[in-house]
Amino acid sequence: MENLPPATVNGKYSFLSKIHSPEDLKKFKPEELQKIADECRTYLIDVIAENGGHFGSSLGVVEMTVALHYVYKTPYDKIIWDVGHQAYIHKILTGRKDLMHTNRKFNGIAGFPKISESPHDAFGTGHASTSISAAAGLAAARDLSGSSEKIIAVIGDGSMTGGMAFEAMNHLGDTKSDVLVVLNDNQMAIAPSTGGLKNYLVNISFNKTYNKVRKFIWDSISLLNNDLGETAKHAVHKIEDGIKAALTPGAFFEALGFRYFGPIDGHDTDKLVKAFKEMQELPHPKLLHVITTKGKGFKPAEDNQSKWHASSGGFDTITGKSLKKVTKTSPLKYQDIFGRTLTELASKDHRIVGITAAMPGGTSLDTFQVAHPKRFYDVGIAEQHAVTFAAGMAAKGFKPFCAIYSTFLQRAYDQLIHDVALQKLPVVFAIDRAGLVGEDGPTHHGSFDLSYLHPVPNMIVMAPKDEQELRDMIYTASQYNDGPVAIRYPRGTCNGLKLNPYFSSLEIGKSEIVREGSSIAILAIGTMVEKSLEASHLLEQENIDALVVNMRFLKPLDVAMVHAIAESHEKIVVVEENSVIGGLGSAVNDYLRKEGLSNETLTLGLPDKFVTHGNMKDLYRMLGLDPENICRHIKSFYKGAVAGKNESSQSTIRTDRFA
Amino acid sequence: MENLPPATVNGKYSFLSKIHSPEDLKKFKPEELQKIADECRTYLIDVIAENGGHFGSSLGVVEMTVALHYVYKTPYDKIIWDVGHQAYIHKILTGRKDLMHTNRKFNGIAGFPKISESPHDAFGTGHASTSISAAAGLAAARDLSGSSEKIIAVIGDGSMTGGMAFEAMNHLGDTKSDVLVVLNDNQMAIAPSTGGLKNYLVNISFNKTYNKVRKFIWDSISLLNNDLGETAKHAVHKIEDGIKAALTPGAFFEALGFRYFGPIDGHDTDKLVKAFKEMQELPHPKLLHVITTKGKGFKPAEDNQSKWHASSGGFDTITGKSLKKVTKTSPLKYQDIFGRTLTELASKDHRIVGITAAMPGGTSLDTFQVAHPKRFYDVGIAEQHAVTFAAGMAAKGFKPFCAIYSTFLQRAYDQLIHDVALQKLPVVFAIDRAGLVGEDGPTHHGSFDLSYLHPVPNMIVMAPKDEQELRDMIYTASQYNDGPVAIRYPRGTCNGLKLNPYFSSLEIGKSEIVREGSSIAILAIGTMVEKSLEASHLLEQENIDALVVNMRFLKPLDVAMVHAIAESHEKIVVVEENSVIGGLGSAVNDYLRKEGLSNETLTLGLPDKFVTHGNMKDLYRMLGLDPENICRHIKSFYKGAVAGKNESSQSTIRTDRFA
Repeated sequence: MENLPPATVNGKYSFLSKIHSPEDLKKFKPEELQKIADECRTYLIDVIAENGGHFGSSLGVVEMTVALHYVYKTPYDKIIWDVGHQAYIHKILTGRKDLMHTNRKFNGIAGFPKISESPHDAFGTGHASTSISAAAGLAAARDLSGSSEKIIAVIGDGSMTGGMAFEAMNHLGDTKSDVLVVLNDNQMAIAPSTGGLKNYLVNISFNKTYNKVRKFIWDSISLLNNDLGETAKHAVHKIEDGIKAALTPGAFFEALGFRYFGPIDGHDTDKLVKAFKEMQELPHPKLLHVITTKGKGFKPAEDNQSKWHASSGGFDTITGKSLKKVTKTSPLKYQDIFGRTLTELASKDHRIVGITAAMPGGTSLDTFQVAHPKRFYDVGIAEQHAVTFAAGMAAKGFKPFCAIYSTFLQRAYDQLIHDVALQKLPVVFAIDRAGLVGEDGPTHHGSFDLSYLHPVPNMIVMAPKDEQELRDMIYTASQYNDGPVAIRYPRGTCNGLKLNPYFSSLEIGKSEIVREGSSIAILAIGTMVEKSLEASHLLEQENIDALVVNMRFLKPLDVAMVHAIAESHEKIVVVEENSVIGGLGSAVNDYLRKEGLSNETLTLGLPDKFVTHGNMKDLYRMLGLDPENICRHIKSFYKGAVAGKNESSQSTIRTDRFA
Repeated sequence: MENLPPATVNGKYSFLSKIHSPEDLKKFKPEELQKIADECRTYLIDVIAENGGHFGSSLGVVEMTVALHYVYKTPYDKIIWDVGHQAYIHKILTGRKDLMHTNRKFNGIAGFPKISESPHDAFGTGHASTSISAAAGLAAARDLSGSSEKIIAVIGDGSMTGGMAFEAMNHLGDTKSDVLVVLNDNQMAIAPSTGGLKNYLVNISFNKTYNKVRKFIWDSISLLNNDLGETAKHAVHKIEDGIKAALTPGAFFEALGFRYFGPIDGHDTDKLVKAFKEMQELPHPKLLHVITTKGKGFKPAEDNQSKWHASSGGFDTITGKSLKKVTKTSPLKYQDIFGRTLTELASKDHRIVGITAAMPGGTSLDTFQVAHPKRFYDVGIAEQHAVTFAAGMAAKGFKPFCAIYSTFLQRAYDQLIHDVALQKLPVVFAIDRAGLVGEDGPTHHGSFDLSYLHPVPNMIVMAPKDEQELRDMIYTASQYNDGPVAIRYPRGTCNGLKLNPYFSSLEIGKSEIVREGSSIAILAIGTMVEKSLEASHLLEQENIDALVVNMRFLKPLDVAMVHAIAESHEKIVVVEENSVIGGLGSAVNDYLRKEGLSNETLTLGLPDKFVTHGNMKDLYRMLGLDPENICRHIKSFYKGAVAGKNESSQSTIRTDRFA
């Protein structure tokens, strides 16, 4: 806010400064829309250069967004943005222009559409492929209630590979309800799209054969019509409709009951406005195929679309060059460790294969891809398929590492249970982005994986305290052949350790004491081991000598360790970056009850509510999961007082009936 | 076994008695296959008439199965049966003929393909739409390891509506790996299929236009070729391929990178053998469209396909008439109560809509459909879409009841979290088949829903003790508008209560004491309330006076009740028909720890392993969840001794350090 003057007072934005709502946009002439689009683009580049955020996808839909809001009337009409990170222009045009500098920041606006943020956000998004389902629901509701608003789902070709998009089209095509699906086709999701459908779309878009064929057939039919006798004419006539249907370039969509239109140029405001106006007049489900360029109008982003999918800001608005001071190379990310370790192991172990659902870069599986291209599989935005595909490979003796973000693995929960765990197949789930993810917020936090994996029989569930342990866990998982293994690790940088050149196997279900102490015991897992250690140093200053255990495994739980500690320490604190319900805290409580051990316990973790977006530091502090707050909670617990109520943690303390 | 002589010794089966493996089948001449198919069909009808089981789907694929095993060589080649309840003929032909009478019985063979049961079962199935993913995985593994087995996925048109089938085709079409997908198209799943794709398949199959068009174009191209000059000929030639592709009736599948063949008659062994042999020679992904009739060869099943999807046995093998003695009308099922109650409420509350994912009969939502056809939505086998579709309707003020089986809701876990709970949308999840389901076994037990719903913020989770309470819960959910509600209820018959004609609203999060007692407290939920009450009567005979609480709500937990009981009863037993991990037991333990209450607890529930198939009585007994075993466990727990170790329950008792 300090750095970027609101667009309203900036002479650079002569159009945009007059647009505070879609109503304002409609006051302009059609021929002015391109200029407005240009200003939106410049503004977006300015904002992102300063503040960071998703980028490429919104640049690709500038003209489309301007045209949509020019033709349709939100909030009466409903626009649903699939995934939603392409909705920045939508936010700019619907009254949030001057808040864009707070985008994704703690207490700022969200990086995704959000019902509670604006009436113009018809449905919240974040995960891929939900928009057509939501649109179908809104449309069914409209049809029942007899209103007449238009419903539009804007979905990328990448999101179109997600099964639920197909499920929704299949249903909608049958109901005949009035919905417009805008296929935003840039041949990219975050990474280049994959799959048969992509090739099909490429054919439609870039191969002129289809149009030629169509023209040829039309011509030959009339030709034949002229030359043929009456019977033949009749026959031709009868089958003409069939031919037309069969020759539509969008036969795939037509098969599902949609009318297909396009492809059209997604950077031409005139064509877009015309097309949307036509669409507005048509009842029933229809799909408008729009060709766009991800990163359009910002050369560096056009040239390297994956890299510029999102940016942390601080770059030159023309060249894209970083304006940040060059610092020493920052520590590796957990993702790097995963990608490199798997690559290394796979060189020796030919059973290892790597599977990603459209996240080769995000998961660093691209490293593996370069080294072992034949053993790398990008299945598209298709987590369900990814997991059962992995199960299939495991059934034939391979060792698939399925790298999926924690929040997206929710989408393959059934497959994980039914196709992997039930059959005890040795699939390894590399669960990336477990715990908080920061700026992406509640749709992307990995808050639940420990809880939802815990009840699944046959699963091994572990989380490393640092990068060395991640390496060892990956190795351990590669050696384990009796069933599935899940390794959850966080987004972001590691501790900067020097890594062992060799691999060590961890004993399954074995924890380690990382700090001896007699006053109180802290059982931590994953990211919270380091934070608990830091907290233990703070506690030392308060004369509280805390034992800290790196639990490593949620399942099987190291019950020998828990038992021994329960005998030696009256008070036990569990710290985990997961919901306080159903994770390590519950596992420890269940075990203690089961064994008739009545130690006092306190679980610090993510609260039973959805956690907002913001930088990690603010979020940890808000939730009481920074070392200072962990220390404070433990101190109160140790001293037997009621801990200062904190937004998050289960900090209530026992009343000490038996102490 | 007592009742049905094995086919081997029965003169009725002159072919079948010689077939003990697919190798034996191959010894026969092609022209004998229809007779073998006929015998398989008769045998299947005999077995099912006697023992019950799935029925219609297997009757539909008799010829297909015989032809597949005649052409392909399992276990070297791999056949994956989507869903798997059509795999009975496969089981008969692969050495399990004489075990068919044990099908679905406790300690008998499973009703679905199962890797551990036979090397001919390449991949276990049960849930829909997994087969192509598994096939793609097996194919990728084959391609890497350089072997050359053929991989076949047999999938119904209903299962084809599930998103993951599409995801798998999209991926497979891109990899070009050699897989045959056999589309078993009977226009039915368990209920008639729905969706745009179905209409498309009907068009291909029954409308001759496509084939006419194809022929016409072929003819006209050659005609033109003859008449045209060289340039034109060249142009025509160039676009010929494009025309061919565009005119294929299976353009939908071709779009995904598959070659499409068919449709062919699925009850003609000659054509099937010929087609499979052709398929065997073709590399790359291809789809063979086979038209079959569900229930083929058994008139009653052909006439009423939904009714005869499965049978409990005991019918005349010609007429289908029940041979069971007519008894008094049996008590209603929980499903009936759900369907009727919702129908009744919807007459007054116009916001109520009913949504099913291809289970109108199973969930009894068909009752609702008849009364409120415009507010009924069958979205196909598409749980993901069902849930987000419901969210869309809720966002516009409707009150959707999403009736989904517990085990299938696993498939919409992400949508439940991301699209419903995060947005606090008032969708009601009517979770059918929660807990054990009996004969369908581990793929279908609803063992995890309490655990996986528990950590989801904003959810209300409840389970009724009987049909009256189910009615009241449905009513309560219909009145609750602040967020999502889940009601889990079991498969099967109710207690036979006389129902109140009026509706009562339950206080959210409030439990009830159903039996006073001072010795020990039992906190039960759902089905286990009744069983706990019965156990309490048995306990009385042992002079143990048990308090029994119907907890009703897992979330929010009635902490006031738990607290009060913890103060009045030293020992607390939790009984639930859900995994002992993460459900009510964990919730109670977590609460007691949080409050510093050190009561001894014991959780009786489903073990941390997959539970086999069998009748409910046997399963309950095996797991210690019948009243007798509940009584026995509680008695041991009460007396402080270690309970007799039972396969299932967490029956270890505290060592009583503080008692």
